[in-house]
Amino acid sequence: MADQKLKVGIVGGTGYTGVELLRLLAQHPHCELAVITSRQEAGTPVAAMFSNLRGHVDLNFSAPSDDALKQCDVVFFATPNGVAMQQARALFDAGVRIIDIAADFRIKDIAVWEKWYAIKHACPELVAQAVYGLPEVNRAEIRQARIVANPGCYPTAVQLGFLPLLKSGAADLDHLIADAKSGVSGAGRKAEVHTLLAEASDNFKAYGVAGHRHHPEISQGLDAIAGRATRLVFVPHLTPMIRGIHATLYAQLTRDIDLQQLFEQQFAGEPFVDVMPAGAHPETRSVRGSNVCRIAVHQPGGGDIAVVLSVIDNLTKGAAGQAVQNMNLMCGLPETTGLEQIALMP
Amino acid sequence: MADQKLKVGIVGGTGYTGVELLRLLAQHPHCELAVITSRQEAGTPVAAMFSNLRGHVDLNFSAPSDDALKQCDVVFFATPNGVAMQQARALFDAGVRIIDIAADFRIKDIAVWEKWYAIKHACPELVAQAVYGLPEVNRAEIRQARIVANPGCYPTAVQLGFLPLLKSGAADLDHLIADAKSGVSGAGRKAEVHTLLAEASDNFKAYGVAGHRHHPEISQGLDAIAGRATRLVFVPHLTPMIRGIHATLYAQLTRDIDLQQLFEQQFAGEPFVDVMPAGAHPETRSVRGSNVCRIAVHQPGGGDIAVVLSVIDNLTKGAAGQAVQNMNLMCGLPETTGLEQIALMP
Amino acid sequence: MADQKLKVGIVGGTGYTGVELLRLLAQHPHCELAVITSRQEAGTPVAAMFSNLRGHVDLNFSAPSDDALKQCDVVFFATPNGVAMQQARALFDAGVRIIDIAADFRIKDIAVWEKWYAIKHACPELVAQAVYGLPEVNRAEIRQARIVANPGCYPTAVQLGFLPLLKSGAADLDHLIADAKSGVSGAGRKAEVHTLLAEASDNFKAYGVAGHRHHPEISQGLDAIAGRATRLVFVPHLTPMIRGIHATLYAQLTRDIDLQQLFEQQFAGEPFVDVMPAGAHPETRSVRGSNVCRIAVHQPGGGDIAVVLSVIDNLTKGAAGQAVQNMNLMCGLPETTGLEQIALMP
Amino acid sequence: MADQKLKVGIVGGTGYTGVELLRLLAQHPHCELAVITSRQEAGTPVAAMFSNLRGHVDLNFSAPSDDALKQCDVVFFATPNGVAMQQARALFDAGVRIIDIAADFRIKDIAVWEKWYAIKHACPELVAQAVYGLPEVNRAEIRQARIVANPGCYPTAVQLGFLPLLKSGAADLDHLIADAKSGVSGAGRKAEVHTLLAEASDNFKAYGVAGHRHHPEISQGLDAIAGRATRLVFVPHLTPMIRGIHATLYAQLTRDIDLQQLFEQQFAGEPFVDVMPAGAHPETRSVRGSNVCRIAVHQPGGGDIAVVLSVIDNLTKGAAGQAVQNMNLMCGLPETTGLEQIALMP
Repeated sequence: MADQKLKVGIVGGTGYTGVELLRLLAQHPHCELAVITSRQEAGTPVAAMFSNLRGHVDLNFSAPSDDALKQCDVVFFATPNGVAMQQARALFDAGVRIIDIAADFRIKDIAVWEKWYAIKHACPELVAQAVYGLPEVNRAEIRQARIVANPGCYPTAVQLGFLPLLKSGAADLDHLIADAKSGVSGAGRKAEVHTLLAEASDNFKAYGVAGHRHHPEISQGLDAIAGRATRLVFVPHLTPMIRGIHATLYAQLTRDIDLQQLFEQQFAGEPFVDVMPAGAHPETRSVRGSNVCRIAVHQPGGGDIAVVLSVIDNLTKGAAGQAVQNMNLMCGLPETTGLEQIALMP
Repeated sequence: MADQKLKVGIVGGTGYTGVELLRLLAQHPHCELAVITSRQEAGTPVAAMFSNLRGHVDLNFSAPSDDALKQCDVVFFATPNGVAMQQARALFDAGVRIIDIAADFRIKDIAVWEKWYAIKHACPELVAQAVYGLPEVNRAEIRQARIVANPGCYPTAVQLGFLPLLKSGAADLDHLIADAKSGVSGAGRKAEVHTLLAEASDNFKAYGVAGHRHHPEISQGLDAIAGRATRLVFVPHLTPMIRGIHATLYAQLTRDIDLQQLFEQQFAGEPFVDVMPAGAHPETRSVRGSNVCRIAVHQPGGGDIAVVLSVIDNLTKGAAGQAVQNMNLMCGLPETTGLEQIALMP
Repeated sequence: MADQKLKVGIVGGTGYTGVELLRLLAQHPHCELAVITSRQEAGTPVAAMFSNLRGHVDLNFSAPSDDALKQCDVVFFATPNGVAMQQARALFDAGVRIIDIAADFRIKDIAVWEKWYAIKHACPELVAQAVYGLPEVNRAEIRQARIVANPGCYPTAVQLGFLPLLKSGAADLDHLIADAKSGVSGAGRKAEVHTLLAEASDNFKAYGVAGHRHHPEISQGLDAIAGRATRLVFVPHLTPMIRGIHATLYAQLTRDIDLQQLFEQQFAGEPFVDVMPAGAHPETRSVRGSNVCRIAVHQPGGGDIAVVLSVIDNLTKGAAGQAVQNMNLMCGLPETTGLEQIALMP
Repeated sequence: MADQKLKVGIVGGTGYTGVELLRLLAQHPHCELAVITSRQEAGTPVAAMFSNLRGHVDLNFSAPSDDALKQCDVVFFATPNGVAMQQARALFDAGVRIIDIAADFRIKDIAVWEKWYAIKHACPELVAQAVYGLPEVNRAEIRQARIVANPGCYPTAVQLGFLPLLKSGAADLDHLIADAKSGVSGAGRKAEVHTLLAEASDNFKAYGVAGHRHHPEISQGLDAIAGRATRLVFVPHLTPMIRGIHATLYAQLTRDIDLQQLFEQQFAGEPFVDVMPAGAHPETRSVRGSNVCRIAVHQPGGGDIAVVLSVIDNLTKGAAGQAVQNMNLMCGLPETTGLEQIALMP
């Protein structure tokens, strides 16, 4: 692998996931950025849209074309939901490995997916083949996968935080609570009023309490981990910051257990999950721009409620970074290749 | 009352609670700001420290002196914890009404107070006389009080949010959860590293999960409302904004109940609690600079967990505004006098 | 006037200028908010769109209709540029006083206006009748005006800051420099990518260096004050804050002059211009939500360049507050009525 | 050089310059981080103070000791002003290369330095030997230097922006204006009230208009470039963001000149200065965490005033990044080694 670079294509790439993916791939030692498509921006130099890439990325956006993409070893979809499912079949048949950073292949139950995303799914049969790309849960399957559904940002932070508790069998599975807070980049690079600085800055609010698209994705994952149906209350909040998710998780314990030890053992050897010492409080900025999920676990007052604090950068471990991690696994590269950036702090 | 103004004194007043109190009192139609003391700033014009008050407050800070304060009808303590308990007795004996915005008189159990505040209490006997100044719970007692313990910011948002649930008897009192988020002004105008803009901006973190001074205050209030001991997990978080608290509260329901109706009935007629329509999400900015607590209640998925969203401005309803509300009640003024500012939005 | 309220109408009102105008008018003691129109939001309660107004404004948005507006004493246009010029004639003929907070009537030279706003002007003859509503310059004319062009935000801060220098005749009129910084609410409540929190937060940039619509408006004002043509370099910058403009102005002095005295004398008696003591640095937050322009003047190193620091809240003195000030003047009310809010700090 | 790593020491390192230096050095391919001293934090793991370094830096802070530092090839001082001058002589005599990121060796005129820093200089003779570490001006000298005075953040952005104009001889050297805006990390990781989030957020202000320590440093540099005395007005402003400096520079042109060409030619081949196309506006975020100075030049209205927009990350090109660039030059490494990070955007 070391002497031949992977040819990589990106579909989309004008959003935040796209620019983050470009930042990571431009410095990945075993990738050659071969093509990036955007119907709207065809012809525009990538670095004219994202000035941080000046001097690092020479490519222009090109019009979508299966031909160029079919020449690639790996294609990432950094597109809005509903695009990858239109284009994936042709690439799949051409033998290209596919990583969809959007939601098209995440939910196995097509009816559920169609309800939440309000469109008819274009290729349910590929959903069945897709592996859910959470390496800490599905590493072996990802290594064999030809199509990976990259997890959502909230789902990554919440599933990793609940993982040891659910595996331990020591939590009441009917009363799980995920109180999650996200920076506004999670809403994407879309012109919308509610994410304007003048609206979202110096402000805090919950949203989607009645229902959020990430809820069924999280529940599917928690059910799979627990081996039975779980019940989760999921309350997302919009936080006045650019990047970062902080999931505060609550579970009732059904028996005595050493939580610190449980978490340390679960994640021992994981390159991108960092369990902090007992009593610690992870900060979102400590993972800003890095692929790490940083976790602490508490048992306030020695009572029967476990509190897990789980932070990620929504654009890195919650999107583009995890996508590169999946690419490394799918392509037989060391899992951490190109992903050892230190978080920018302050 | 209308033709004679209350003489008002402030002890302290160089912190955020102080400047907020000055903003409110400077435009209160029935108050005359008579004296404001600060050992450190004696002689400094108040408006030289807080330039927003130029043209509105002509007073200088003066050295602490019981004499000037004893001439007042009402004295507010906007001091660090542990100051009011030293000076309150003399003023109390002189017949001055006292409102302590710090924590000295909030907790009835002196041993608990001394544990959390790590100092010996100087006048436990006044604690017994002090009324806890949450008007939505103790309005009648406040009207008669000569000394009021103004509630903390988190305790205001959390108690008001839980109030209807606890009164209804429909909540599991052993598994209450308060996931609370505060702007950094809640930490006060103190030179500290962790609240620097370069530390706290574009960042989110929990803190004090193992224990926070507001926990016993909240529990004391919840127990009183419920009429029995409750168990609460309280997780405060630092949010990159100046003002505002958002409390997200979780309670397991023990029977069917119409939550929207419950909340609307509880707060019908309350001038400073606004129950939003079903499905709403209050924003902290909607109460920025106003004395309102804005609340919404949800029952996600029709399940057995109630989710309450409760927002206040920590410096207004969570401190200085509620203190003025208490002053109005203690002095026989209409409760809303001087407190009808509209929140600044955007 | 005191016993009869002005009937006030607002056209538009779904933007930031609109909500700020509503905040001010809802508590103005001599106004009755009679009608507010919005084609798009007709039927929506105003307080459903702006939750800070819950309990303060009961009105619904109504469909645009000259009839209701013609019943008003005063109509404000809080609309995008190009709307007021379509509707003003009918109201004007009906004897309604008009205040346009947009740009339609600001520039006397119609050709210049049409170049910068890229539309044909619908009623040039009203432009000739309109008074430029900067009270510190045109107070007498505003009192007589039937139609007022409310100044832009940058133009207010820049003209007030340069005013004493230009009147003194001690500045080189060919090398004026205005380095201006604005919060993002100056861009309006429009869904655009560049003002998203994820784009504009933790970032600083200049824009429009080659040309900005406020440039001809400022130059027209400076020329009028100076009594001859001036030359100005105007560089606006986008600042990661919600409200506030800070104009840093540079002028070469052509003779010795006591700048502090010059500024104090110019603005003595002005209710909404506050000249700070020598050596001071005004902060934008010191005017947040207030109608004040706060100014300091410096002469670094005793050299031949004067530096003026001029701050306003772009939505208050830079838009809605100044509009209410103009209404007060036009309608014979005390100029400060309803405008004595203290800035919210912190 | 490639097969043997430089032994690097850091004195100080608990501030923002320190943590940024650690981020860069921890991933520098030719450095071994040998020792980091802090009197106050001796014994503390570096990663316990800066959680972004968990897993990347294993070192503990150690007590200051010349012995360990004398074993190093290079020692960086990331200390408050006045520390390096106490310790530099011993290290210098031991043959260690020294890079002072503070101000001790920046100003050649000791009397001027002592006036602005208000302390007596401890080793004026080393000041004479120190090379001012702005590679775009002094590259050859830096390569030979044994002690480098790393430039201040404002001075870097301002000198690089003025450089082509001063070299061209086409600017009026008596009326240079630098209107500079800095994020709050420029004030350091010090507990101070004015840089608290609750003070500095949603706010903008100038400071130090009467005089700032960076003024004499900038003027010394401009004089050297121009070959004669220049006169500069320098107005720094505090901006509500973490990182970034935006210098807006104004110079009167004394003759016709193609500014775009002038700038492009001056910086052709410079690895860390990026001249943008004509008409562009650089954003501070486009260099966040990178060692780039990004520049655009304008001539508004074709008039006689040149406007230069120059942005850097104050902690990278304005401090730690430039220090590593200097180390690379001093030690014969390729200048860009370890400094090719792409800016984090958004």
